[in-house]
Amino acid sequence: MTADDAATATAGDGDPPEPYGEFLDHVKRLTYVGDARQLLNWDQQVMMPEGGTPARAKQQSALSTLGHELLTDDDLAAWLDDLADADLSPQQQAVVREIRRKHERAVSVPDDLVSRISEATSNALPVWEQAREDADFDAFEDTLDELVALKREYAAAIDPDRDPYAVLFEEYEPYLGLDVAERILDELAAQLPDLIDDIAASEVTLAAPFEGTYEESDQRALVEDALDVLGYDWTRGRLDTSTHPFTSGTQFDARITTRFTPDDPLDGLGSTIHEFGHATYELGLPREAYGTPLGGSRDLAVHESQSRFWENHVGRSPAFWELFAPHVADHLGVQADPGALYEATNRVSPGPIRVEADELTYHLHIALRFEIERDLVRGDLDVAEVPAVWNEKMDEYLGLRPEDDAAGCLQDIHWSNGAFGYFPTYSLGSVLAAQLAAAMQEDLPLSEHVRDGEFDPVHDWLTERVHRHGCRYTTPDLVREATGEALTADHFLAYVTDKYGALYDL
Amino acid sequence: MTADDAATATAGDGDPPEPYGEFLDHVKRLTYVGDARQLLNWDQQVMMPEGGTPARAKQQSALSTLGHELLTDDDLAAWLDDLADADLSPQQQAVVREIRRKHERAVSVPDDLVSRISEATSNALPVWEQAREDADFDAFEDTLDELVALKREYAAAIDPDRDPYAVLFEEYEPYLGLDVAERILDELAAQLPDLIDDIAASEVTLAAPFEGTYEESDQRALVEDALDVLGYDWTRGRLDTSTHPFTSGTQFDARITTRFTPDDPLDGLGSTIHEFGHATYELGLPREAYGTPLGGSRDLAVHESQSRFWENHVGRSPAFWELFAPHVADHLGVQADPGALYEATNRVSPGPIRVEADELTYHLHIALRFEIERDLVRGDLDVAEVPAVWNEKMDEYLGLRPEDDAAGCLQDIHWSNGAFGYFPTYSLGSVLAAQLAAAMQEDLPLSEHVRDGEFDPVHDWLTERVHRHGCRYTTPDLVREATGEALTADHFLAYVTDKYGALYDL
Repeated sequence: MTADDAATATAGDGDPPEPYGEFLDHVKRLTYVGDARQLLNWDQQVMMPEGGTPARAKQQSALSTLGHELLTDDDLAAWLDDLADADLSPQQQAVVREIRRKHERAVSVPDDLVSRISEATSNALPVWEQAREDADFDAFEDTLDELVALKREYAAAIDPDRDPYAVLFEEYEPYLGLDVAERILDELAAQLPDLIDDIAASEVTLAAPFEGTYEESDQRALVEDALDVLGYDWTRGRLDTSTHPFTSGTQFDARITTRFTPDDPLDGLGSTIHEFGHATYELGLPREAYGTPLGGSRDLAVHESQSRFWENHVGRSPAFWELFAPHVADHLGVQADPGALYEATNRVSPGPIRVEADELTYHLHIALRFEIERDLVRGDLDVAEVPAVWNEKMDEYLGLRPEDDAAGCLQDIHWSNGAFGYFPTYSLGSVLAAQLAAAMQEDLPLSEHVRDGEFDPVHDWLTERVHRHGCRYTTPDLVREATGEALTADHFLAYVTDKYGALYDL
Repeated sequence: MTADDAATATAGDGDPPEPYGEFLDHVKRLTYVGDARQLLNWDQQVMMPEGGTPARAKQQSALSTLGHELLTDDDLAAWLDDLADADLSPQQQAVVREIRRKHERAVSVPDDLVSRISEATSNALPVWEQAREDADFDAFEDTLDELVALKREYAAAIDPDRDPYAVLFEEYEPYLGLDVAERILDELAAQLPDLIDDIAASEVTLAAPFEGTYEESDQRALVEDALDVLGYDWTRGRLDTSTHPFTSGTQFDARITTRFTPDDPLDGLGSTIHEFGHATYELGLPREAYGTPLGGSRDLAVHESQSRFWENHVGRSPAFWELFAPHVADHLGVQADPGALYEATNRVSPGPIRVEADELTYHLHIALRFEIERDLVRGDLDVAEVPAVWNEKMDEYLGLRPEDDAAGCLQDIHWSNGAFGYFPTYSLGSVLAAQLAAAMQEDLPLSEHVRDGEFDPVHDWLTERVHRHGCRYTTPDLVREATGEALTADHFLAYVTDKYGALYDL
């Protein structure tokens, strides 16, 4: 590790300038409060008895307000001013850059607007849930309209002169630029439908070795084996179940949740490997920089690249199934050969539900949401038109129409939560995963290592190229640092073209 | 519920005076941050992977500092000044009284001393653990000496003119007064040894129906049945295992932990019922007052009275075993009659270890610790003399000498944690439990209800007399409100004299 790469926040050329120490203590405190909130959220989703909700809401809100106050603090503003022209090491500059960006966004949004958005999203959740249950978009329309208006106001508070959707996108992916995201998503939307059409026209039928249902305890044993094989550090993590799988934690304690579907053991396995990828990113962050941006993960696209790398480039590879097929026989009693299991994890089948989509059609679900939310936020689309536009695009991209809005534009929680600009990061993560896999293969024989269960070199490569940097680099710089080139969809498109061409005899 | 009894903090005669609303919001925030800390602690003891320790320590410390800042806040000081002469309802006065007391203690201790104590106790824990493992008091002596000195300094910062041990005792039991505690403990120390001697001389041998070991899963099923029977609200709680059983939470979510001893299923059962008592107190606090002292539990003696009431006056009663014996047969395969199980839970057997002690000898363990820590803090005893004094008193009170200091003065964690003044609250809780049981029996047939598994009237009585008041009353006032008299050892001494007289044919 060179001096420039050293992960500690205070490592630079000599002692840091005067206010840097105090500034950094404040930053750490902000992180610790945020991590406490994260634990409260994990507990709520995994352990908390249902009666605990009212108290937990108040605890979360108190920590959220404290975090906001720490981020908008006058002392912090003064330190940021003092440090603007200070002689800082590159690491210190990165810390200041990251905190300044968050501070400036936070101070630009009036407290009153923060409260109104918080209240509106709290109220929206049950309205959305009921509307989805009733497949009744009309019941959600006014709520969605209000949320769009509030988030437009939010974007205008941050920068009234810029495209509001670009401003919202930066909430989730601050440095990449919406133009880059847009170009990549357009490319996927342009190129994937032909491949999917070819697959639909193929006469190949992939293997489907699972039938009936499988006990949760057996499925659990299977995914625990997968985590063992892939190298999950159980002394710094745990596995539980929750309605929606997620990962929570830090480099000291990164916990995974999963879910089990009785008739689809590959769903729980895939989810677990996906979350394992997120967890390995957290666990690979430098421990000595915990509490500072140098010890924190980069944003959503990079995080998703880690989960997608393990889920798709490892877990959906022929080599993985050569390694892992015996475990399926052991725990589920399914005597399928590695080739059949490889096929089973890679069946392409267009459907209306995003979270059930395969590796390929998934991105058209994202492209559709991206186009709709972008137009909503820009004021180019009325909320009332969302169902019709949704169904038309679904027809155009995947050749199907949802049977109702519950299986259509009401299926995702994101908008009810005010999260406009989040969806694109899913596809960007897959694209980056393929780019990382391609770069990795120039350095080491990935398939051989996977087949042999030799995952240390894979972890080491990802830690060296991505994890250990924390937020030292902006996302575009990190992508270039890790892969030698800017973010591009080329590797992803080459990967799926090769893989599915071979699978479906195209 | 009369107006005076209304649990909501803002309920009074008309609108509260000007600063009361802001004051109360601040108080709630302080509570929510404290409850978040409590959850982090629960997670650490129950769920956290071991690798999480360094990050958790920093998160806890950040929340602790934020809580301290909220409590010593200048705005809070100003509000307390403004409210000193304001026209407040009795409930509002109680809220101000509780917060003023905590605020004044917090501001009187210099930050530097808080840090030194925090550091010293952090350092002391591993030193104590090692010393206990090696049964080597000398290795702990300097550490204990430093802790005593620091806590004397702490007491002097709060009030240099008062007995430092009385000041420290108020950390755990603020309103009762050390003189009351001292009188009660002296009474137990004076009277219990004769009863224990008589028992030792008795020719009666109580039944011991358990032999061999019992599976954890069976023991778990047994204690779950106990919680079902007693009326634990699983929608507001959960049961887990931890090294040291404890209860954590609020009126919305009060969680229990327990532990299982393979050859002693009564240990896990008793622990669980004990913690259930703590949990019912939390769950009985008024929900609408959550976040204020009116929605918070009174201090340690009252809390312990709730756990001891259920553990001893219910769980160690003949009626309970008439109800519960079939469950022991079901889960453990032990076909013992209720009388034998009653005897088994009430065997008196002096031993060196406090946490293994029976209901009777337990209080001599406490009396001994009380006398030693009081003399240490007052400067009447040198730390170096602790082992000798411990062993002499153990001989005097229980007729035995520990085989080494690990089984003697090194057995408890409390002193290494700087907790001088905590031990007495255990005995005070038992004494109050007996007083509550006696008062309850004037209103309802406790034994019949227990025998019939009719616990609602018992819960209702305790909620009406104790839980719903939160911190509306000081401890002495609450005791009088609940039982009609001041705290007294009379009921406890009558209870044990009757009970053990009958069991041992005295």
